[in-house]
Amino acid sequence: MISNDSKKHVVIIGGGFAGLSCARKLAKSDEVRVTLIDKNNFHQFQPLLYQLATSELGTGDVATSLRQALQGHPNVDVKMGEVAAANARSRTVSTREGESYEGDFLVLAAGSQANFFGTTGAAENAFPLYSVEEAQRLRSRILTVFEDADRDPKLLERGALNFVIVGGGPTGTELAGALADMIRGAMMDEYPDLAVKKAKVYLVDHGSSLLAAFSEKAHAYAAKTLRRKGVEIRLGISVKAVAPDHVLLSDGTSIQTRTVVWAGGLMASPLAASAGLPQGHGGRIEVRPDLTVVGFPGVYALGDFANITGENGQSMPQLASVAQQCGEWAAKNILAEIAGEGRTPFQYHDKGIMAMIGRDAAVAEIGKKRHELDGPIAFAAWLGVHALLMSGVRQRIEAFVNWAWTYFTRSRPIQVLDRSDVERIDWDEGAESGTSGTAPAVRTAR
Amino acid sequence: MISNDSKKHVVIIGGGFAGLSCARKLAKSDEVRVTLIDKNNFHQFQPLLYQLATSELGTGDVATSLRQALQGHPNVDVKMGEVAAANARSRTVSTREGESYEGDFLVLAAGSQANFFGTTGAAENAFPLYSVEEAQRLRSRILTVFEDADRDPKLLERGALNFVIVGGGPTGTELAGALADMIRGAMMDEYPDLAVKKAKVYLVDHGSSLLAAFSEKAHAYAAKTLRRKGVEIRLGISVKAVAPDHVLLSDGTSIQTRTVVWAGGLMASPLAASAGLPQGHGGRIEVRPDLTVVGFPGVYALGDFANITGENGQSMPQLASVAQQCGEWAAKNILAEIAGEGRTPFQYHDKGIMAMIGRDAAVAEIGKKRHELDGPIAFAAWLGVHALLMSGVRQRIEAFVNWAWTYFTRSRPIQVLDRSDVERIDWDEGAESGTSGTAPAVRTAR
Repeated sequence: MISNDSKKHVVIIGGGFAGLSCARKLAKSDEVRVTLIDKNNFHQFQPLLYQLATSELGTGDVATSLRQALQGHPNVDVKMGEVAAANARSRTVSTREGESYEGDFLVLAAGSQANFFGTTGAAENAFPLYSVEEAQRLRSRILTVFEDADRDPKLLERGALNFVIVGGGPTGTELAGALADMIRGAMMDEYPDLAVKKAKVYLVDHGSSLLAAFSEKAHAYAAKTLRRKGVEIRLGISVKAVAPDHVLLSDGTSIQTRTVVWAGGLMASPLAASAGLPQGHGGRIEVRPDLTVVGFPGVYALGDFANITGENGQSMPQLASVAQQCGEWAAKNILAEIAGEGRTPFQYHDKGIMAMIGRDAAVAEIGKKRHELDGPIAFAAWLGVHALLMSGVRQRIEAFVNWAWTYFTRSRPIQVLDRSDVERIDWDEGAESGTSGTAPAVRTAR
Repeated sequence: MISNDSKKHVVIIGGGFAGLSCARKLAKSDEVRVTLIDKNNFHQFQPLLYQLATSELGTGDVATSLRQALQGHPNVDVKMGEVAAANARSRTVSTREGESYEGDFLVLAAGSQANFFGTTGAAENAFPLYSVEEAQRLRSRILTVFEDADRDPKLLERGALNFVIVGGGPTGTELAGALADMIRGAMMDEYPDLAVKKAKVYLVDHGSSLLAAFSEKAHAYAAKTLRRKGVEIRLGISVKAVAPDHVLLSDGTSIQTRTVVWAGGLMASPLAASAGLPQGHGGRIEVRPDLTVVGFPGVYALGDFANITGENGQSMPQLASVAQQCGEWAAKNILAEIAGEGRTPFQYHDKGIMAMIGRDAAVAEIGKKRHELDGPIAFAAWLGVHALLMSGVRQRIEAFVNWAWTYFTRSRPIQVLDRSDVERIDWDEGAESGTSGTAPAVRTAR
């Protein structure tokens, strides 16, 4: 697919925040045509995946058709395909479906996947939470342990309703809050015969605080709020092994559970390793401040796929807003290159960070100001922040209002165990043997 | 699980319209406790499955958690389980999960599945549309053929965008209208490079009219409306065979396609054959006018699972409203039995029948009156009818208003190819050989 007209061809890999915002910016230019390749036909809204996992939102609420998002731009072509190889030298991409694309510019925005740091059993037994697919799997697991325990309440003694979340960053903290709310709310009502109050959410982090990227007072607020919701927080503790039926911690204790959620770190998706480009922390592609890759003219790497260094010399965090802004910036630099002008270093406009801790509490830090928010105000703030992020994605404001309304009124939890997501649990698995020779301690608390 | 208190135990198999309305009616009585068993954790709203298949609604819009629907009734126990065997003599039920239940009353409302009438290849290659699972599979197939054709436009010549719907009843007619709207609307916009206008919807029925249960003028209206939308209607024609890449018709022609939707008939779910009860047309359980089964005291059969004879001696149609009303009626008869009173014959209150033909047209027949509705009026009528049906299921009116709003504003088609639903198409399958020795004619029109 060689460019057959005068327009420069930009090939973008990945329709996440970075890739999509880059495509949308380029779509307005007459100088380029764009091919956006993604293995899914949808853009996924990562910051809300934890709500898909806890049945608060449906798949259609956190996934938007890429074709819809880019509709009406004849110079943008969306192709659904799984990238098999990318050659940064020739700026060519081939897909498993057998297509190949060659760009004048190549934008790598292929995102991340869970980084298990070699933890025994984690890849096999833990539930990551970075994609719609992973969130659906986790949702099904949560609903399945409740159904199984409802049929056989003895499973409660075997930790069926213990949920262990590894990683106290925003994803882990938000999930812990939402899950605790779900248990104390919907599940308590829906399983009146089951001792749902024995259900327990554990949040484990090897660091000394939750929400490490936030200020110290926010750490305390998050911990206090989660404890009020019944979450047991274990700080300064790492995970040694994840078995099918328990997790082993660095202090020698273990927790019986069938649901270990891995929110403990990310690494670049496998494409990074195969592209022959310089990789840094987490396997992410090293980029110059202008988001290009040294030695590979016309190649950009963005979002979670790249190590982006801010003006202060620090690595930018893996945030949707960083990804979105650098996508636009890369588009600007590409258009500058075409116009024969110079590229400029990416400047991140920090709008602050925010984490929801369940439905009724949030912490937001904007500049040096910290806001602890409760009740409807927390929701309103959350709404505002996500409206800003979504405005680039959703075509119609009605959709967002509608969706927010659904969320706020709590009227329609999507507790649907889709056929295809149901993985039956073998409750006898792991019951006899421990993990890698470690004794399967059955203490669930120190 | 023997009843251990003075309340009579009613075991209901199936959480469809019949089983759920029966459970809801019984829930209000102090005389009974109820166990409702379903293989899914949700009630599915069959009349709208065609909208799930055409991406107009999401899974959460047509599936409602059974536990939520029955929440707040301590005498109702929902159990997710797949019934392996039901003994009508002892009124015992065992599930594949290893549970067993014994009732003073047994209510069989296990629903239907597609009846392929032995058509060669239909079970393997056609897409039924009776369950959420089947609607999701069909949705994925529709989205997949568009994506595949977008990558390789030559597939158009091989019928990639031909859609053949077998059966001109309400399901087939409504799907044909919705699919034609989807193609001429969303798909035309989203695949600007693809010759989407070559996409073609065929509606095949062996009878002499569409919507046979409606009046003659309605037949004509449905046909005229669908033709205006570009649907090709083939009446008086039956399907001889369904191959992976084409369908062979009784007039000797064949249509190249990868998407044959089977809306051509239903039969009772397999449980009916194994229960040792009298079966009639479509394998459905024969019931007395009071919905009980002759020779099996305390056993009721309802909805699509039963052959219900109306006061005029005719079989009741397989309609949600019939199922819903007979569920309530069975509950009334069970309570009468417990009170030592007589059972009464089911009286169906016919509120009329309605079919939507795409988004902007509908035909409704109430009593002897026929209404042909266009535009917003058609939508309003549709809204009213479904609000009535849903009122028994949804707890909160907001949910319904919200959902109707989504539908009406068309703001959020759920075009998401879920990981787990994606079945890749082997485009070479069937390309060389015909079906069962029949020549693979490649004419797509007479």
